[in-house]
Order: sequence, then C-alpha cells, then structure tokens
Amino acid sequence: MSSPEFSIIEEFFTPKHDQGLPPVVGIGDDCAVVDVPAQKQLAVSTDTLVEGVHFLPDSDPLLLGHKVLAVNLSDLAAMGATPAWFSLAITLPVLDKAWLSAFSQGLFTLAKRHSLQLIGGDTTRGPLSITVNIMGLLPKHQRLTRSGAKVGDGVYVSGTIGGAGLGLEKAKSDAFNAHDEDLLAYLKPNPRIDLGKQLLKLASSCIDISDGLSADLNHVLKLSGVGAKIYHDKLPLTDSVRQHADKIGDDLWPYSTGDDYELCFTVPERLDLSSMLDVTSHNITKIGVIEEGGGLRIKAKSGELIQLNKGFDHFNVE
Amino acid sequence: MSSPEFSIIEEFFTPKHDQGLPPVVGIGDDCAVVDVPAQKQLAVSTDTLVEGVHFLPDSDPLLLGHKVLAVNLSDLAAMGATPAWFSLAITLPVLDKAWLSAFSQGLFTLAKRHSLQLIGGDTTRGPLSITVNIMGLLPKHQRLTRSGAKVGDGVYVSGTIGGAGLGLEKAKSDAFNAHDEDLLAYLKPNPRIDLGKQLLKLASSCIDISDGLSADLNHVLKLSGVGAKIYHDKLPLTDSVRQHADKIGDDLWPYSTGDDYELCFTVPERLDLSSMLDVTSHNITKIGVIEEGGGLRIKAKSGELIQLNKGFDHFNVE
Repeated sequence: MSSPEFSIIEEFFTPKHDQGLPPVVGIGDDCAVVDVPAQKQLAVSTDTLVEGVHFLPDSDPLLLGHKVLAVNLSDLAAMGATPAWFSLAITLPVLDKAWLSAFSQGLFTLAKRHSLQLIGGDTTRGPLSITVNIMGLLPKHQRLTRSGAKVGDGVYVSGTIGGAGLGLEKAKSDAFNAHDEDLLAYLKPNPRIDLGKQLLKLASSCIDISDGLSADLNHVLKLSGVGAKIYHDKLPLTDSVRQHADKIGDDLWPYSTGDDYELCFTVPERLDLSSMLDVTSHNITKIGVIEEGGGLRIKAKSGELIQLNKGFDHFNVE
Repeated sequence: MSSPEFSIIEEFFTPKHDQGLPPVVGIGDDCAVVDVPAQKQLAVSTDTLVEGVHFLPDSDPLLLGHKVLAVNLSDLAAMGATPAWFSLAITLPVLDKAWLSAFSQGLFTLAKRHSLQLIGGDTTRGPLSITVNIMGLLPKHQRLTRSGAKVGDGVYVSGTIGGAGLGLEKAKSDAFNAHDEDLLAYLKPNPRIDLGKQLLKLASSCIDISDGLSADLNHVLKLSGVGAKIYHDKLPLTDSVRQHADKIGDDLWPYSTGDDYELCFTVPERLDLSSMLDVTSHNITKIGVIEEGGGLRIKAKSGELIQLNKGFDHFNVE
C-alpha cells in the first residue's frame, strides 16, 4: 500500500514544466539537492500563509496557489534575485482532491512564468496553512538590501498603493466582483521580479510592500540609519483608493494597508533613473526623498508634516 | 513603534552562537543570502510539525524546539549532508514569552551542536505549527539516496527500533516519567549526522526512519526496484519494546511505529563495514539483505515469511 502523502505529491505536486534550472535530486528523497552555479549566491526566503489570518476562510484555491507563491517571489524581487527553486509545506484539514487540483494549478502557472522549479516539501494534516521556502540566484556580491539608503536618495514605488488593502475590504463584504481591480490586486498580486533584477545595479535599498508602505519603508529607514519625507500628493493611488480614503476621512489610510507586493526602493540622487530603466512600463513613481533624522514624515497637501511609523501587524490585530 | 513580529525575532531568534558558516546576509532583510562553497552542492529539506498531529497539545517547548530541528537534521543525515543553515516559520496562537524562551533554548542548543546557523523565517499568528527548512552541504556528486540499493546488499539500521513509538504511548498515558528511555527517544531524538557523513562513501542507499521501518524501507525498495528480507530475530529492540510487543501480542509492532529518526541503509556485500566504520560506537546492526522481487518480507522466528508494507500515515489515522 502506498502512502496517501506520497499520492498527494505524485498527483498534485509533480513539477508540471521543465523551465529553469533542474535540481540534481528532486522530490521523493530525504532532501532535494541543487547545484548553485559558480559566481552566484543563493537568496532564501520563507513565508507562511494561515487561513483566517493571511487569507479568508474558504478562499478560492486557484488564487491561493498563486498568492502563496507570489508573496515569496516578491521577497526575491526585493533582493533583485532570479527565481530558481521552491519547497512547499502544506497542512490540510482534509484530503480534498478538487481543492488540491485547483491550488496546484494556481501554483504551477505562476511557477512556470518565473521558471521556478518545485524541489520538495511536506504534506501534513491540520488547520489549513501553507509555508513556501523559495530560493533565487544573485550574481556574487550583488544584491538589494534594506540597509543601503543614503541621505539625498530618491524614494520610489512601483505600481499603486492601497489597492490590495481596499480589495481585502471588498473580499470581506458581499459586494464580491471577480473582475474588480482592487480585489484582483489583493487576491492575485504580481511580484516585481523583472524590476528587482533591473534595480540590482541602480537602487541603494529595496523592500517589498507586504505589511504596508509605512511599516516597510520604516524598516529600510531604521536599518539604513536615515529618515524620509514623502510628498503625499505624489503617492500613486487609483481613483477607487482615493475615493475610499476620502470616504473614511483618512488620507493616510493607504500607508498602513498591506498586501500590495509592490517594490519600494531608493536610488542615489546622481542617477537619472528614467534614462536607465523604462519607468513607464514598470509603472514607477518618485514619492519622496531620504533625509537625515530617523523616521517617516508625510508632507500633506496642507503643508503639514506628519510622523507615520505604523503598519500592519499580525500580533496586534486581536 | 516597532513591530512585535520583529521583537519576537530579535528577542528569541537572534542566532545565539557563531559556529559554522555565517550567511552573507542573515535575519532582517527580505531574503537571507548564502554562499555555497565551490565543490559543494546544497541539500535542502522541509518538515512541518503541527500540534495535535506530530506532537501532543501542551508539549514541553524546550523539547519541542529540539525535536523540530532534530527531525530536519535527520533528513540531512539520511543524505550524508553536513548541516549549514536553517529557516524557521512558526505559527503561534498567542505571544507567550516563557514558551518562546524555552522553545528557542531547545532549538539553539541543538543548532549549536551541529554548527547550524539560523538565517531567517516567518512569525505568524494561528494554530501552533512549526516548519523548518534546512540546508546542508554535500561534496559535489556525492550523496546518499533512496534509489541505490542492489540485490545482495546488506540492510542495516542504527540504534534501536520502536522505542519512540513506545515513548509516544507513554507520553499519552498518565505514567509520565521524564527519565524514561522510550519517552526520551520519542521526545528528544538524536539525528545521526556523523553516521550519515561517514556512510557517504560506503552505503548504496539510505533513509531516515520517521514513518516506521516498514514504510521507510519500502520507499527505498520501491525507488531502487528491489525487495528485502529482514530477519526478525536480528532487529535491535530494547527490552521494554520487546515486552510491549509481547504484551500486545504483535511481534511486528516495532516495524510500524514512527519517530525513531535512526538511519536505515544498505551496503554492498563486498564491503566489510566493520573494518571501515566503528559499528559499535554508531550502534549499527545488520538486519537483512536486499533481494530480487519487490516488497519487504520479514522472516519470523517460526521461519514463516510475512509481507509487510505498512507504516504510519497522517491522512490514514482519522
């Protein structure tokens, strides 16, 4: 009798494409074995998504398969790394083949797009929770970190901010529309892998926006030993996010919502970013400047400077 | 305001020793970055432990910290790899500092013993569950796999079999004695890292015994396309395990219990293992031989041959 754990892996998690760098030993042994090419270093990240915390109960498994990989790819993007391999540890309350089939499809569609190979994992029984460990490659001695921002650097973001936060509000409500732009930003984020790779030689620091622009940019400021001023009227917001902020009477709301998975990065003042990178196709906006003195200051339309150091926190929402 | 997630990592999961190979970038950025030495390959494994499935509710956090790392180290041992780095993804229902302190102590004590460096992870809120992703180093083109067993090879195990299974029975009962040998085998397994490294040039296949000798050896047999005969009277059992099997009237019970984290391996007939390895200090026993014809056959004391293909399975115990 073969083990159902093995059947789950064989049936749903056998790599579905051959793009990328195959492992020396893949799924099915005690460990996977990979060969890191000469002149490369390995970037490694782990993220867990828990039902009821990071995603709503009864979430669409196809979108969940996409999202669990997207949030991990986003960490590689923030280092400037090229995706190579990943492991999947999935804890399931029951053995639901329709669920697994859809989840696997969402996962592998995104993996294929980024030439990312599944090399191993673990399947266990328990409350629904998914941990991905992702590995990417970096040229030796080149990487984007959180600690390199310098006074005078410009502060940039990709995409728009707050859409995923608004999407989460919509996902919780009954006004569920699968084609809503904000809802898609929340459910199906698009990790900025290509942008991260192009920033390797340009940016002085980089982070992905997972816990909210304010919280994430504050990590960069703290580790770099600097502060920042953001011009609120430069913040790229969709009309719907702008309307939502107006409606709740809180201009600063987009700074504290999570899940955008855009990149926030700094570039030395002397570099002319638009001559070195297609800022239009990457949808890049300069939103502020790095300054002396710790912390994040928002320059409001009124001219007022507002100190803003908060973000989303899993242990603070109870 | 700093994030409690960051505080948890700073307070409890800052690496507590400097043994081993430091990462290029450690905890605190979007990814860790590691440099795999030239002429080495990377062995990678992931294991999840879920409360109520892999460990009993209200388990001692000190022992749990040990065990979650031990089961992952055991996968490296089974490949013959030398421990290097690990990531920890921990999901906690509440922020219990006493619990975290003890868990962290159990974890780092074992990590230090194996010169294993913590390089990253994720802390989330939810039902208690712990996923470790472990990385070890192998000489290029050398590794122990499940697929190399050949007809005529001897079948060996380290340590004794079934003790952890009996320990689990005891842990569930009221007869809890912290010095009980079986209980310790269950709660505090000792991964066979040194043995695995020494077997790299000797063994034709290897697996660690996590789901029970029968299930795990059957994986080797299936992947190697061979069968095996085990001489039951050679199986290394403690007196207490032997007495338990007698008591429940099931000689084959030790083959189906999990959690031993010993190594089961095969060695070509022509190699004289005892002249190449200290079989006494590693506590190694030859228990059988690889044969043609798939499956596992136990030669009982009566002379009867019993086909045995079952082991522990998380989705089969409901």
